[in-house]
Amino acid sequence: MNADSIVINEVGPRDGLQSQDRHLSVEERQRLIEALVDCGIAHIEAGSFVSPKAVPQMAGTGQLFAQLPEAVRPLLSALVPNMKGYELACKAGAQTVAVVVSATETMNQKNIGKSLDDTLAMARDIISRGHNEGVRVQAYLSVAFECPFEGLVAPATIERQAESLAAWGADEIVIADTIGAADPGAVRRLMDSLAANIGPERLACHFHDTRALGLANVYAAIESGVRRFDSSIGGLGGCPFAPGAKGNVATEDVVMLCERLGFITGIKMPALLQAVSLASELTGHPQGGRAHYWLTNNAA
Amino acid sequence: MNADSIVINEVGPRDGLQSQDRHLSVEERQRLIEALVDCGIAHIEAGSFVSPKAVPQMAGTGQLFAQLPEAVRPLLSALVPNMKGYELACKAGAQTVAVVVSATETMNQKNIGKSLDDTLAMARDIISRGHNEGVRVQAYLSVAFECPFEGLVAPATIERQAESLAAWGADEIVIADTIGAADPGAVRRLMDSLAANIGPERLACHFHDTRALGLANVYAAIESGVRRFDSSIGGLGGCPFAPGAKGNVATEDVVMLCERLGFITGIKMPALLQAVSLASELTGHPQGGRAHYWLTNNAA
Repeated sequence: MNADSIVINEVGPRDGLQSQDRHLSVEERQRLIEALVDCGIAHIEAGSFVSPKAVPQMAGTGQLFAQLPEAVRPLLSALVPNMKGYELACKAGAQTVAVVVSATETMNQKNIGKSLDDTLAMARDIISRGHNEGVRVQAYLSVAFECPFEGLVAPATIERQAESLAAWGADEIVIADTIGAADPGAVRRLMDSLAANIGPERLACHFHDTRALGLANVYAAIESGVRRFDSSIGGLGGCPFAPGAKGNVATEDVVMLCERLGFITGIKMPALLQAVSLASELTGHPQGGRAHYWLTNNAA
Repeated sequence: MNADSIVINEVGPRDGLQSQDRHLSVEERQRLIEALVDCGIAHIEAGSFVSPKAVPQMAGTGQLFAQLPEAVRPLLSALVPNMKGYELACKAGAQTVAVVVSATETMNQKNIGKSLDDTLAMARDIISRGHNEGVRVQAYLSVAFECPFEGLVAPATIERQAESLAAWGADEIVIADTIGAADPGAVRRLMDSLAANIGPERLACHFHDTRALGLANVYAAIESGVRRFDSSIGGLGGCPFAPGAKGNVATEDVVMLCERLGFITGIKMPALLQAVSLASELTGHPQGGRAHYWLTNNAA
């Protein structure tokens, strides 16, 4: 990435699809990912290696990795909930894994039935092993602004946790507003502080658009120097375990914002809007942000 | 207003209702305005004195002003398209009027069938007369970022027009993104420049949420020092004469954003959400931004 680039990590095939009532087949998930690759998206969270009992939408992620063309493999990541998941992901050919630490004790208990300390220790072990084995590790801090169970999360908590993850060698630290409760002022303060302590190049942000503040929060993080963002095609998503969590900020809207601000994303908007249509077709629900207004008015 | 306050100018009863297919009676418009007053909103654009043939939704605005309680009068403004409208508004008891200059030649021609120079002269005359007669004048520069007919508008054009309006004595200069085409970078650049030249206290912004950037644009303008914003209850609105114009940024969402950023709006959120319900009932269409997620999760 150069100074004028913004890197999009497309999380629709994982964060997006895992909350859908319609469970896509491995072939349908493959079709969506291949369409996303065709848009020029550089990073795609393709699935997760979690228990199919807990998240049936993600069953068959190993098979999905096997079926995707070899050339696509370097673009893909997989979410792993523990060391067993890490091993399955590596076996399937994942070159990047995402590990999630919820910032609060209660969210860790509710999400994966572990204490915060245990989750942090698990993250440390996976980061360390990834480092030794040449696997890139994205470390997520979820509910980083507000927890649905414990309320507002103190910035000092996130700063401490992010510094630990950085010290352990995480390749990327993703600050995730899982329930879409952040505001741009809070984003600016936290990301300014993290950028000063850790450096902006290892930081990423993950926003949900629950309160219509998704793009305002992306803009605030860009102002803090963040150049990596998660987003989801058509705004697909939410978190089935976090009450109040709505869809992710839509990829096409983030691309529109970044390009309007003068950054290069490398993503082709017409192809992206076709991928939105495909996401609607596959999930059986109309999906989509609002970038099509921009394209429609500027295409002529 | 003090340094920590943000003033909301509620435009739902005018900008919002004028694009509805269902035409509200004067009594229904009165009911909506009284509900908005009960929320603690300090400024409300109650209607316009335009030809009822051009905008039938606004017919009877004189009667509406007459029926509203005397005590509410100082909170109200009316849009006036010309000197005749100004005189009707004053006769009806309006103490504030809004006059609109479209920033481009084509938009003036399409919107009111006048040249840009004629519209500017009309604005100058109304500002001057308002000044002499103790009537506050809000001068709008519409399509200030992009025109549906001429495309992007150069910031220098808006700077020149805004400086003229300021020199003529406009009490407030409202930079209006009529078709919702602004991005926060463009907002920041233009409003920084206008704040430096004119002073932030006479500036206001009016955003539409066409491309999901409404709140990002409000945030950017706040960063530039702007403390006055137009918004519309439930996001009601659009402009029937500007292709592609969708609803205004929702008042409840702007209030949520401002309060989260630490500003005082003086507006009571529960009453505001009741006013959203009333707007849905009266227009026959579901209205609403997304602030209810915030209230729901924070009311306990």
